[in-house]
Amino acid sequence: MSLSIQADAAAALSSSLATGQRTIHAHDLTYSLLPPLTAGCPRTSNADISYPLEVSYDYAAVGSELRQALFDRRHLPDDILSWAPLLPPLDSRLGLGIGGTPLVDVSAAFRSNAPVLVKDESRNPTWSHKDRLNLCTVSAAALSGAPGVVVASSGNHGASAAALSARVGLPCIVVMSPGAPALAESFVGAYGATVLSVPRDARWGVVKDIVDKLGFHPVSNQTTTHTGHPFGPEGYKTIAYELYIQLGHRLPGAVFVPTGYGELLYGVWKGFEELRLLGVVDSVPSLYACEIGSRAVLATALAQHRPAVTVDFTPTDAYSLATTTGGYRSTHVMNHTTGRVIGVDDPDLVRAQDDLSGQGIWQELSGVASVAGLRTALQQGDTFDGPIVCVCTSTGLKDKNALRYEAIESAPDWDTLSDLLRRQGLTVA
Amino acid sequence: MSLSIQADAAAALSSSLATGQRTIHAHDLTYSLLPPLTAGCPRTSNADISYPLEVSYDYAAVGSELRQALFDRRHLPDDILSWAPLLPPLDSRLGLGIGGTPLVDVSAAFRSNAPVLVKDESRNPTWSHKDRLNLCTVSAAALSGAPGVVVASSGNHGASAAALSARVGLPCIVVMSPGAPALAESFVGAYGATVLSVPRDARWGVVKDIVDKLGFHPVSNQTTTHTGHPFGPEGYKTIAYELYIQLGHRLPGAVFVPTGYGELLYGVWKGFEELRLLGVVDSVPSLYACEIGSRAVLATALAQHRPAVTVDFTPTDAYSLATTTGGYRSTHVMNHTTGRVIGVDDPDLVRAQDDLSGQGIWQELSGVASVAGLRTALQQGDTFDGPIVCVCTSTGLKDKNALRYEAIESAPDWDTLSDLLRRQGLTVA
Repeated sequence: MSLSIQADAAAALSSSLATGQRTIHAHDLTYSLLPPLTAGCPRTSNADISYPLEVSYDYAAVGSELRQALFDRRHLPDDILSWAPLLPPLDSRLGLGIGGTPLVDVSAAFRSNAPVLVKDESRNPTWSHKDRLNLCTVSAAALSGAPGVVVASSGNHGASAAALSARVGLPCIVVMSPGAPALAESFVGAYGATVLSVPRDARWGVVKDIVDKLGFHPVSNQTTTHTGHPFGPEGYKTIAYELYIQLGHRLPGAVFVPTGYGELLYGVWKGFEELRLLGVVDSVPSLYACEIGSRAVLATALAQHRPAVTVDFTPTDAYSLATTTGGYRSTHVMNHTTGRVIGVDDPDLVRAQDDLSGQGIWQELSGVASVAGLRTALQQGDTFDGPIVCVCTSTGLKDKNALRYEAIESAPDWDTLSDLLRRQGLTVA
Repeated sequence: MSLSIQADAAAALSSSLATGQRTIHAHDLTYSLLPPLTAGCPRTSNADISYPLEVSYDYAAVGSELRQALFDRRHLPDDILSWAPLLPPLDSRLGLGIGGTPLVDVSAAFRSNAPVLVKDESRNPTWSHKDRLNLCTVSAAALSGAPGVVVASSGNHGASAAALSARVGLPCIVVMSPGAPALAESFVGAYGATVLSVPRDARWGVVKDIVDKLGFHPVSNQTTTHTGHPFGPEGYKTIAYELYIQLGHRLPGAVFVPTGYGELLYGVWKGFEELRLLGVVDSVPSLYACEIGSRAVLATALAQHRPAVTVDFTPTDAYSLATTTGGYRSTHVMNHTTGRVIGVDDPDLVRAQDDLSGQGIWQELSGVASVAGLRTALQQGDTFDGPIVCVCTSTGLKDKNALRYEAIESAPDWDTLSDLLRRQGLTVA
């Protein structure tokens, strides 16, 4: 097995299925699959831009029998471990029931020409999409013989890494910064991780020290522009596989994806692209990258025809998307899809939270960027040839503003209560 | 369709499948299925003890074709709506992907002669088992034409009722008490419910006023000893159906269930009992009711040969189990199973939380009573003829002590960091 990297080619291919390898791009550089390099391509990256590594597969080695066994099934598998033939090497102890998340119809909240469906990633073991990523990255740590896992994260990523590390018996250090939500710190600590809080600018140096001096395996980004762990998007690509099955072996008309670094976006795109390369479908759906509009990390890179850029800080409560640094993966996706980038800001996100709450789904502010993006697209007149999927990434319980609703204290007598209920807009005779 | 009640018979039967009705007990009293009575049986209840109503079915009307379609399937359905033939009338708008929760192997945390599996109910739409109950109770409200839903709850039940009410367009009033966790208040409010905080002792009167004066449909208990909503356990019984499928069409050796009022316990028991009545299996597994030991609501009732008792208050952080009032359903179950009641207290629950955290699962303190109970049973020498299932009900994010872990602040230099990591027990050369 091997790992390939192309400076401009997220679509590089080799195989975890066979010894054969196929590469299709100019900058073919191949590295060992285990232990994987975790700080981008050392040959093509430079001081301004870092290029990610991708796991590549020999799709030609996927016979029709395997293809049918994987993609013709009528039911979602109950764990993404069952996609192992198209994933990097996995630690089978991580069978927590990751993935297999529901697709919930929320059309009633939208005026759209097509059904609107939420892919509810809060239904994972640590209640976010990050479990898909960490299944692959923590497997890499365990199978590489690393003595531990280290991650810089202010929330979902750290908790998921801590949970999965605990399950394979590896110590985990999570590097956070002052100002993280108290619940996020405790969430991570609950799984037995060592939770450090260091000044924000020092986080990357601390991760590097722990990698260099302790040999811990890093599962978050370590580069100037984002590259992340090469196994990360592999977990996310199973979302595309699942959608194909959940939609009755059809492609969605469009997929809206909350986008910060672009790992999730890239993973979803790669999954669809693989379906196409394997001959399961003949096209890739439109992908809509929904990012923080005031920062416009991805839109700026595309406008400037650059692989990735760093932008100025602007305030936002959507902490899971609050990056000032983009990555090459997201520009690559947008150059290979008919979708587009949509900027959304906190008021749009709050509105989207309310849209979903009315449908019985409470999501973290960052997690509804997809829904906010869809609303914008609909307002701008976009139409869709098939079901619209909004990937929603995490529970509202983790929201920075999770405490924004409070009970109304009341005396229990009916006069007081009925007045109060009337003021709440309820019909009281 | 009809609803039956027996003073001593939780196992009464009639049908939502056919017009026929079969009743098997001395105190056969039948009431209309819609709108259901929601305050127990008005004829058999008295000032000391309230008797619940149960939905009864004509199991003889379930043909082999339907039985096979329901129980021979190899994959869990992705929504418990698919069990509709064995459930009360449901509102199909509530397709949020309720149920279908994973069964996670946590054997590594125990010394047991049989595998230990967690049924992780935190993977429901509002991250607790309560969604199963409220699918049925909120359906009752909607299909009865009620103008709204009211519930007394300090957390999971209220949030779930609020979410599902929002989805069917019904206003929801949740009655809480001072001292509820701030996150619980906000969790409920996020779904647009009206959240009232009234003095603890006044809660039931407030619910009654809202029922009587506004005609809202109550989905929580209204009686002296617990009866709850007659449709509630119907949702929970799908856990038994799912376990049968997930275990490869076999029964577990034992099921451990967190027990407060006993609705969940009863529901799980009823599901297995129905499998037996339908001829799918020929016995019912041992059920272990795991309750707060210092209160011993259920153990006391059994010791005194009474249908239900009220006990003195004792402190516990396990607020979802913290009842001083039992119900007839749980004594009925314990008189019809080979399992037993196990008392667990806060230190046992904290230990059980840690057991599961080491396996990548973080649960609310109340939600791990099952795991704490299993540990006690194992210490007392119990052995099991088959897989042991612990039903775990909700995410640690909702824990009253959810903030008990904090990050360790540190300067970022390696000397400081390495000292700190050493003190945390990590190996630093």
